[in-house]
Amino acid sequence: MSFSKFHEECGVFGIYGDTDIEPARAVYLGLYALQHRGQESCGIAVSDMGVIDFHKDMGLVGEVFDEASLNKLKGQIAIGHVRYSTTGNAMAENSQPTVLRYAKGRLAIAHNGSIVNAKEIRDSLAESGAMFQTTADSELIAQVIAKHRTKTDSIEDALVSAMPSIKGAYCVLLMSPRKLIAARDPMGFRPLVIGKLRNSYVVASETCALDAIQAEFVRDVAPGEVIVIDSWGLHSIKTNCPNDDSTRRTCIFEYIYFARPDSVIDGINVHASRLKAGELLAKQHPVDADIVIPVPDSGIDAAIGYARGSGIPYGVGFVRNNYVGRTFIKPSQQMRRESIDIKLTAMSQSVKGKRVIMVDDSIVRGSTSANIIRLLKKAGATEVHVRISSPTLHWPCYYGTDIPTREELTSNHNTVEQLCELIGADSLGFLDKNSLGELVNAKCKNYCDACFTGDYPVK
Amino acid sequence: MSFSKFHEECGVFGIYGDTDIEPARAVYLGLYALQHRGQESCGIAVSDMGVIDFHKDMGLVGEVFDEASLNKLKGQIAIGHVRYSTTGNAMAENSQPTVLRYAKGRLAIAHNGSIVNAKEIRDSLAESGAMFQTTADSELIAQVIAKHRTKTDSIEDALVSAMPSIKGAYCVLLMSPRKLIAARDPMGFRPLVIGKLRNSYVVASETCALDAIQAEFVRDVAPGEVIVIDSWGLHSIKTNCPNDDSTRRTCIFEYIYFARPDSVIDGINVHASRLKAGELLAKQHPVDADIVIPVPDSGIDAAIGYARGSGIPYGVGFVRNNYVGRTFIKPSQQMRRESIDIKLTAMSQSVKGKRVIMVDDSIVRGSTSANIIRLLKKAGATEVHVRISSPTLHWPCYYGTDIPTREELTSNHNTVEQLCELIGADSLGFLDKNSLGELVNAKCKNYCDACFTGDYPVK
Amino acid sequence: MSFSKFHEECGVFGIYGDTDIEPARAVYLGLYALQHRGQESCGIAVSDMGVIDFHKDMGLVGEVFDEASLNKLKGQIAIGHVRYSTTGNAMAENSQPTVLRYAKGRLAIAHNGSIVNAKEIRDSLAESGAMFQTTADSELIAQVIAKHRTKTDSIEDALVSAMPSIKGAYCVLLMSPRKLIAARDPMGFRPLVIGKLRNSYVVASETCALDAIQAEFVRDVAPGEVIVIDSWGLHSIKTNCPNDDSTRRTCIFEYIYFARPDSVIDGINVHASRLKAGELLAKQHPVDADIVIPVPDSGIDAAIGYARGSGIPYGVGFVRNNYVGRTFIKPSQQMRRESIDIKLTAMSQSVKGKRVIMVDDSIVRGSTSANIIRLLKKAGATEVHVRISSPTLHWPCYYGTDIPTREELTSNHNTVEQLCELIGADSLGFLDKNSLGELVNAKCKNYCDACFTGDYPVK
Amino acid sequence: MSFSKFHEECGVFGIYGDTDIEPARAVYLGLYALQHRGQESCGIAVSDMGVIDFHKDMGLVGEVFDEASLNKLKGQIAIGHVRYSTTGNAMAENSQPTVLRYAKGRLAIAHNGSIVNAKEIRDSLAESGAMFQTTADSELIAQVIAKHRTKTDSIEDALVSAMPSIKGAYCVLLMSPRKLIAARDPMGFRPLVIGKLRNSYVVASETCALDAIQAEFVRDVAPGEVIVIDSWGLHSIKTNCPNDDSTRRTCIFEYIYFARPDSVIDGINVHASRLKAGELLAKQHPVDADIVIPVPDSGIDAAIGYARGSGIPYGVGFVRNNYVGRTFIKPSQQMRRESIDIKLTAMSQSVKGKRVIMVDDSIVRGSTSANIIRLLKKAGATEVHVRISSPTLHWPCYYGTDIPTREELTSNHNTVEQLCELIGADSLGFLDKNSLGELVNAKCKNYCDACFTGDYPVK
Repeated sequence: MSFSKFHEECGVFGIYGDTDIEPARAVYLGLYALQHRGQESCGIAVSDMGVIDFHKDMGLVGEVFDEASLNKLKGQIAIGHVRYSTTGNAMAENSQPTVLRYAKGRLAIAHNGSIVNAKEIRDSLAESGAMFQTTADSELIAQVIAKHRTKTDSIEDALVSAMPSIKGAYCVLLMSPRKLIAARDPMGFRPLVIGKLRNSYVVASETCALDAIQAEFVRDVAPGEVIVIDSWGLHSIKTNCPNDDSTRRTCIFEYIYFARPDSVIDGINVHASRLKAGELLAKQHPVDADIVIPVPDSGIDAAIGYARGSGIPYGVGFVRNNYVGRTFIKPSQQMRRESIDIKLTAMSQSVKGKRVIMVDDSIVRGSTSANIIRLLKKAGATEVHVRISSPTLHWPCYYGTDIPTREELTSNHNTVEQLCELIGADSLGFLDKNSLGELVNAKCKNYCDACFTGDYPVK
Repeated sequence: MSFSKFHEECGVFGIYGDTDIEPARAVYLGLYALQHRGQESCGIAVSDMGVIDFHKDMGLVGEVFDEASLNKLKGQIAIGHVRYSTTGNAMAENSQPTVLRYAKGRLAIAHNGSIVNAKEIRDSLAESGAMFQTTADSELIAQVIAKHRTKTDSIEDALVSAMPSIKGAYCVLLMSPRKLIAARDPMGFRPLVIGKLRNSYVVASETCALDAIQAEFVRDVAPGEVIVIDSWGLHSIKTNCPNDDSTRRTCIFEYIYFARPDSVIDGINVHASRLKAGELLAKQHPVDADIVIPVPDSGIDAAIGYARGSGIPYGVGFVRNNYVGRTFIKPSQQMRRESIDIKLTAMSQSVKGKRVIMVDDSIVRGSTSANIIRLLKKAGATEVHVRISSPTLHWPCYYGTDIPTREELTSNHNTVEQLCELIGADSLGFLDKNSLGELVNAKCKNYCDACFTGDYPVK
Repeated sequence: MSFSKFHEECGVFGIYGDTDIEPARAVYLGLYALQHRGQESCGIAVSDMGVIDFHKDMGLVGEVFDEASLNKLKGQIAIGHVRYSTTGNAMAENSQPTVLRYAKGRLAIAHNGSIVNAKEIRDSLAESGAMFQTTADSELIAQVIAKHRTKTDSIEDALVSAMPSIKGAYCVLLMSPRKLIAARDPMGFRPLVIGKLRNSYVVASETCALDAIQAEFVRDVAPGEVIVIDSWGLHSIKTNCPNDDSTRRTCIFEYIYFARPDSVIDGINVHASRLKAGELLAKQHPVDADIVIPVPDSGIDAAIGYARGSGIPYGVGFVRNNYVGRTFIKPSQQMRRESIDIKLTAMSQSVKGKRVIMVDDSIVRGSTSANIIRLLKKAGATEVHVRISSPTLHWPCYYGTDIPTREELTSNHNTVEQLCELIGADSLGFLDKNSLGELVNAKCKNYCDACFTGDYPVK
Repeated sequence: MSFSKFHEECGVFGIYGDTDIEPARAVYLGLYALQHRGQESCGIAVSDMGVIDFHKDMGLVGEVFDEASLNKLKGQIAIGHVRYSTTGNAMAENSQPTVLRYAKGRLAIAHNGSIVNAKEIRDSLAESGAMFQTTADSELIAQVIAKHRTKTDSIEDALVSAMPSIKGAYCVLLMSPRKLIAARDPMGFRPLVIGKLRNSYVVASETCALDAIQAEFVRDVAPGEVIVIDSWGLHSIKTNCPNDDSTRRTCIFEYIYFARPDSVIDGINVHASRLKAGELLAKQHPVDADIVIPVPDSGIDAAIGYARGSGIPYGVGFVRNNYVGRTFIKPSQQMRRESIDIKLTAMSQSVKGKRVIMVDDSIVRGSTSANIIRLLKKAGATEVHVRISSPTLHWPCYYGTDIPTREELTSNHNTVEQLCELIGADSLGFLDKNSLGELVNAKCKNYCDACFTGDYPVK
């Protein structure tokens, strides 16, 4: 279910240009491909011969930018951002990139993720007289960098020296008048990749954004690494990098739900990972049935995996209405039509009189699953067997995902059997949490599965 | 390919209310479900104790209507329309329903389809002093009805007596202050169905719109039938109905592409019809391959049919970007990125090193197919075998579909072999036009396949 | 008081171009100068080599048109309209010019005034099958012309033959693909003038619009005259013209309030007419006082006249807030601040401790006058003597002005003495209705003063 | 000329509420009355039981606020701002009030005027690591205060201790969660007054804003004074106040042009001051003529003064178009119509054949005057004698007015005689700069006339 279960957690894209594509337009294309990571607001900042300008607003990339606004964003360097607020209120002023002035000039910043010790940093800065105009982490990171900048020789040194005091999951893009700088937190929670388009270097949250501009994938940014791209080319600063890969904690949920299926994160194909989850599910929770259907769109890959693993035919069980906007008006109190009813219609022609295996990526509160199962039964399915391509969710995420509180997570209140009954399924199976490593071919546990296990890498 | 190949051809929805749902909100839900039939403009008109009001504008249902505009549309009867212009310019004033005043009061009209003899009717009316404010057929139909109304006792009689002079494909909804009237042309080109929600009668272009408000399907409106719904209930006038079903000409393209897969038209499941097309294709054009993938979304059902028919595994070959708006800005002339590239990304993880069967619903100009095949090859597909779930297109449609001119239809200039080479496919197979009847279990040829055969039911 | 007392009654402007100004831009400038005649909606239609296009919307000229919309309006002929609805609802579809298609092609129409027998004409047309999409008189006039066009050789002949059946006050501009046609009703209620700009002929509601494009004034259109401007130049058709000027009934209220003071109507300077009214008032209602102040802006000219006539110094008694928009939000129910308080502030520095003569153009309901007098007294005026530069209003206007019903006109319920007490004035004097002729140097009564006298020229 | 000669310089309004008017609505009314001081953007911030919220945007008060936005601004304290940018770019993010977070909580700030040593302060703050998100002085003042707040016990003490380091002309309103604080710079360049509405204290830029909410005038804020209004009432802190009134430098241009004529600044009536200027002009530059006319609206008061002083009749020479919006489209390059032509029309009925005295407030570049005189001559004036109610302008203003550079001021390049010829006048007279004191009954030179004399009170 890609509709609203999780609010996704921002995406960044930057380019230091030396090609026939205008940087702002490259960012525009890249953000389009990263739109699934944030639909609330977006923005692009450019540096034109050292002069920084920007355009940002609430809305989708296709709404915020038009020919006129892109034409104004001339420049040689550009960074962009799509946002769904994880921290900070949903206000236009919290949209990114944030452009600031400090002692050494102007600076644009875009980041995703979540700073765990934001309050401590904010209080400490305020005590020395700092003022904040927004509640966004990006303003916070910028102020920390500005503080460090008074004691260092360059903006990248300021970033490197500031990183140890910033705890949490983050990818940061900085654009100074003449440089594009990128950093990934030392645990590498969120993905960040380097690409190349002729002589231009590109940095993006996911490889699908490289594909969008036909850039070739170079490599992942390493956890803790700082990348500097300027007229001299690309440089790497590894001061904050751990010694080996064992401390890396790539978010496993990126593979399960967040990332686009055509992206490759830290060497692992997302689509392949989801197919694998489906195949594992077929082994762990087999059931005799007539058809395997996905909850569109996020269950599609795992459903195909389950069909392949089980030999039961894959089918389409729902029509998804592609025209549902962000506001939906309830028809009346008496009728109590759910928003889900207008988004999904169960296709009785597929499921009538059949035993159906319905594959989804996760269950948060359970109410959406209950609604969807009701649709299937009403459409004539004789049995609905629910298979979830991830383990039961028990813990909130402090690293940039808005998985709700423990209270709200239905798996903290119900056994799988209880939940099965609650949502009206005929059987219910989750991926075994010990299988998670198989999704990413992990030899050591170099991924974060805290939302399933409570095993948090950072306090 | 659901993006832009054909501009779809309007949808209508009407309700004569007697339930706990407000009629305007029922229409709102119904139009949401019919949005695939027209995205240019939409509107709703209501009659409140005999007083007709309306709201319409350019845009999607979710954009044009909000809580405030729906609240103003109080009433007991309501009709609505989603439009893609087939005739008439794309102007706000051509949006429907059209509300007019004539000798007997106000009248709201919404229609889909296309009047073949529009020019003749227009000229004849103009010669007697009529003026036209729009280029829309709905204004034309209304004027014909108004002319006939001066000689008849009721609005439905005026409609019945006007119908023989109106040639072409049309479904019309009329709302007079106290009645809801619906008519389907005598050949029944476009679908029109009757539903019931408690004591309320509903008329809609497709059954999926009945499902959207949980109304039950009653029956199809018969070709030539006029339905009158008022405080006395539902009445049928069969004056213009042919004697038997043999002259019915339901548009076969509704099954292949236009209609939503969960709709049932003239007794035939659309989804089932598409599965059947895929299965037939597998028999008619078998090929040894590794994976069957659809061009999303319109090729999905047929691809599943092909996979089932051939035994070759079904898979996902493309990621579709759900956030592509109606305007897309080209990055630069040099780069020449096509609009298709931002909408679809080929998933190399699925197709790399594989022999791929790609299923789509039709080929019009061929350029989109060429682009998509290029994406697949670039993503590593070793072979791309294209299978089209309809025959080759040769003739324009005069009945409400904007299939382009003969010049533009690539199949008029190329043999299948030439076209295969042109689009860069390794093999290409179309559904045999003699199989079309199998899609709809036809005993006699009670469907229109003129776009494939040139066999036009009306001159 | 220019704020809202009367809704003004539309203005028209047309040009048949042959100069270096683009016709649409000339109309734009002309409409700007006529904006005081209607602020609800406006529009411009152009004919470009016979192809008619238009742009119109709700709002002021400066809001509806911008560089882009004007650039699209290429053409050699153009007509425009500013509207305040006198008949027809305040809807975008009722804005003008109205563009229609009829047997002979396209036609654009713009008119001001009011058709007295609109209902009869509408019923008669409807009985023969006509449909109406708006409630506007312009659609009605167009349909009458279209009817007549079937029996005549040219659009101008159709207009000439239609005019006798149209009763009331009107000025009409028609634009056919190749001609600009103008007509003034046979009684000449509303002004209409001809101007010339190099080789281009211009027709406009007031001379101030000629000045706006620096065109020279040629002459007034005569009552009943039809003017045709085409590639052959300007032609006059006098079929419907009365024999002499004695039946002309120019609206006297145009001089008192509606027209811009710099316009000249039927040979009489509006500003001079208002000065004269002030001078007459000074003679008819002298009073001992310290200062003469106008109610801005409509009382300014008469106040200067009064000051000159009486020898009492002219002064500024109010500051008018030029930034008051069309919506004003009341601060709270308890406080009961009137809209007038934000628009006008009494200047205590001018009036404190003084005996004030306040000059205004008319009193409709009396409540605004009462509010303004209260402001003056609160600002310290010891006496407020009100002088009104027109007689007491007693009758509604059927010729295009929205003077309210007899019920609402306070002078139908109160003697001048009662009204004086009601509004809190120390004395109150109206212009003697027998003096009206002096305002326009009338030898015979060739003006309409029905709103003062009930002496209606048309039933 | 009130159109565009000078961009005016912001206005502030604050209320600490204890009445039946809602504070946000009081500010709304106050800002409406101060709109002449800034039309670019406006905003209101409120504190509701200690929680600060705000709404601000580009546009006029009547455009930015509506019923819905005002309803959201609940609270007991409110401050507002109208802005025309004197420093800082014209961007939405520079609009005020600015709301910030610092060590002690939230703070809203609104100011007018101009900080002379802004660059020094900015550099000094930046060196210690401060970041700036805007170019506005208000952010600068806030950061200085935040710095001082770390060393003081209260926000008002921080303001008092910060003031000596801030050089220039400014009035500041601060709103902390529980207090309303106001300060006027020690030289008192810009006006700031205290009013009272029942138990509520009000602070505003001009007395006309007190009148707008029917508050009574209490007194001017003294130069250097800090006013604190909280639940204990109003307190005054005079730490930064000079010993006597001799160092006060109220801007003389407030009297000549900026302020609304109904305001009273530092004890002097603005309207009276302008009448006086007109009377002085009549004595200093008498001429034999037939009529005295103002350039509307800013020349009206002085023209009346001139008429009274000279005995020559006052008249109306121009019609001002009240509907001219902020964008005006030029008709064509060839025609070269000036923007002024659409705003003002010379009234030939007033000036034809007459010797005219035209009174305006100032001449900056001379081009507007030349255009206006051209209009008068074209309308038939035989002579145009220009009288300016201020001395010749020679020096830029560093205190919040955007008087242009010395280069652009025509009086730095031309003698009065040359200028007279340049603008096409028959005679030209400016107010003697030695008379300026008479406008404000000055005993010592307690006003700033640097723009006329170059005698700057602050370097």
